[in-house]
Amino acid sequence: MKTLILSGIVATSVMGASLIDEAKNAGLKAIPANPKAVEKLTSNPKNPTTAAKVELGKMLYFEPRLSKSGLISCNTCHNLAIGGTDGMAAAIGHKWTSNPHGLSSPTVYNAVFYSQQFWDGRSPHLEDQAQGPIQAGPEMAAPKDFVTGVVTSMPQYVSAFQSAYGKDIKITFEKIADTIAVFERTLVTPSRYDAFLNGNKKALTQAEQKGLKTFIDKGCATCHNDIALGGTMQAFGVVAPYKYMNVGDFKGDKNGMVRVPTLRNVTQSAPYFHNGQIATLPEAIKEMGRIQLGVNLNDEEVTSIQTFLQSLEGKKPTIVYPMLPASTEKTPKVDVVNN
Amino acid sequence: MKTLILSGIVATSVMGASLIDEAKNAGLKAIPANPKAVEKLTSNPKNPTTAAKVELGKMLYFEPRLSKSGLISCNTCHNLAIGGTDGMAAAIGHKWTSNPHGLSSPTVYNAVFYSQQFWDGRSPHLEDQAQGPIQAGPEMAAPKDFVTGVVTSMPQYVSAFQSAYGKDIKITFEKIADTIAVFERTLVTPSRYDAFLNGNKKALTQAEQKGLKTFIDKGCATCHNDIALGGTMQAFGVVAPYKYMNVGDFKGDKNGMVRVPTLRNVTQSAPYFHNGQIATLPEAIKEMGRIQLGVNLNDEEVTSIQTFLQSLEGKKPTIVYPMLPASTEKTPKVDVVNN
Repeated sequence: MKTLILSGIVATSVMGASLIDEAKNAGLKAIPANPKAVEKLTSNPKNPTTAAKVELGKMLYFEPRLSKSGLISCNTCHNLAIGGTDGMAAAIGHKWTSNPHGLSSPTVYNAVFYSQQFWDGRSPHLEDQAQGPIQAGPEMAAPKDFVTGVVTSMPQYVSAFQSAYGKDIKITFEKIADTIAVFERTLVTPSRYDAFLNGNKKALTQAEQKGLKTFIDKGCATCHNDIALGGTMQAFGVVAPYKYMNVGDFKGDKNGMVRVPTLRNVTQSAPYFHNGQIATLPEAIKEMGRIQLGVNLNDEEVTSIQTFLQSLEGKKPTIVYPMLPASTEKTPKVDVVNN
Repeated sequence: MKTLILSGIVATSVMGASLIDEAKNAGLKAIPANPKAVEKLTSNPKNPTTAAKVELGKMLYFEPRLSKSGLISCNTCHNLAIGGTDGMAAAIGHKWTSNPHGLSSPTVYNAVFYSQQFWDGRSPHLEDQAQGPIQAGPEMAAPKDFVTGVVTSMPQYVSAFQSAYGKDIKITFEKIADTIAVFERTLVTPSRYDAFLNGNKKALTQAEQKGLKTFIDKGCATCHNDIALGGTMQAFGVVAPYKYMNVGDFKGDKNGMVRVPTLRNVTQSAPYFHNGQIATLPEAIKEMGRIQLGVNLNDEEVTSIQTFLQSLEGKKPTIVYPMLPASTEKTPKVDVVNN
């Protein structure tokens, strides 16, 4: 018995160590263990993260009055309570409009680690990305001057901007989006997987380690790599066309490339794929094997990869729900039914 | 100079003391200073408040999957970030439906102190009230068995119910509503006004005390009394008809009585009145004087009452945004566009 246990430990240890190297060689990277290192990695050098900006950005992220209707905030479609997304196949926005391309809301958690934003990768970073949905007709539908009008109508927001950026700050639409992005940059969720890659060989169970190995051996890490296990542009339907490609008119960027979604917290972001047509994780894994890798994954392999993916459930930051300032007589009035 | 200051203090003190008595004689009551006393006052003897129930109730309050669309939670229309309401004239619900009676969402803060719930007072308490909007077609539109199906599909909810109520708990629709109500019972916001009524004569400024006196002298406390400064059924348009009575078809209960809204945090709950047709507080005060008291309040009186009402801005409880369980394969699927 003792011998068996010991050999078990030795086996784990050896598998753990070599698997960490394998993972690193496959391009997988951990979220650093040290919070200071995470802050350095996620902070925008042109607009460094500070506590005052994060707090203000959080208020704006939860602020429904940034939308034309006064009802929709960033958090409506990227709901931090349910994995940073909305659980919808296609996003629903202003006046209950379904996303015209049939696109699903990607999670905001760990989006800071993406090298491109949006499914077609048209945006280079969160500061730029945050400007899109606020203005988009089917999402929050708010013109730039409406948004700045809302924010500057409330003295508490004006002084929060001054505290965050200095007395002379001009509150522009772009600065509002920048501030939301600073908050989003903090939405990082370290998991047991990171502890494992950072050297704690016991952080993943044997079954999870086996799943990670299958994930690497089958080629999943070719696209799902780096810190996000995703986030770059890749060809889609490489070997065979995606089963539900006809749902919605999205065909990727001009070269047909699609931004790879993160696999962190993937257990919370169903339904899957850009048009949300895949309901379950096993089905998503199988379909990916078929269309991207040209392999017919058997049930054991699917289960093993799924077991690994579950270890990517991360620890979410604690978010105290913000108390927002009261509207004033200067706050733009909304006619939610007619406008 | 010294004499002047001293006489000022004496005057304050004397006015303060007699004004507290006047306020109490007018039926105004403070939220108790002692948190234990508040808990005793707000707890439902048939379903006593416990930390486990409050935490679970908070999750359910923020849970969009309780709605038929999966998009609307209690917090959508009773948003705790913006005064416990939505800033809309008439509430918007399922598939962007405007409230069919043109009714505005009342704040959930301090609603525990109401003796009747809903604008027509048809519900006796929060436990009963919470069942309404979840099921109502123009609000969350979810049948009872859909709601219990959602909750019981997620093991984390099942164990949270067991922790809160014991292993044998049957998760019914009514129990879900009860649990939301337990959370709502904690949404109490003590203010400087309470500190004043509880004996701290310096808690209100001279101008606020003067406003309180005007409020009492003009008769506002006839309806806006007790802890909520509202919450009972009263005749509406006693002296003259409300200017915007023709907006929406709401005519009160069968006797034409309307539930009086709380004045706590009233600076955050514009637009005003049951159909949200009054944009500003001064206009609301003037209209109330005209239609309920038969007095034409002059600008000074209106400003004075407004100054007092501002002191009713209370301290909101700190709410850590809940992290909700992931949907499972058993969670009812939603077709948000067609259903």
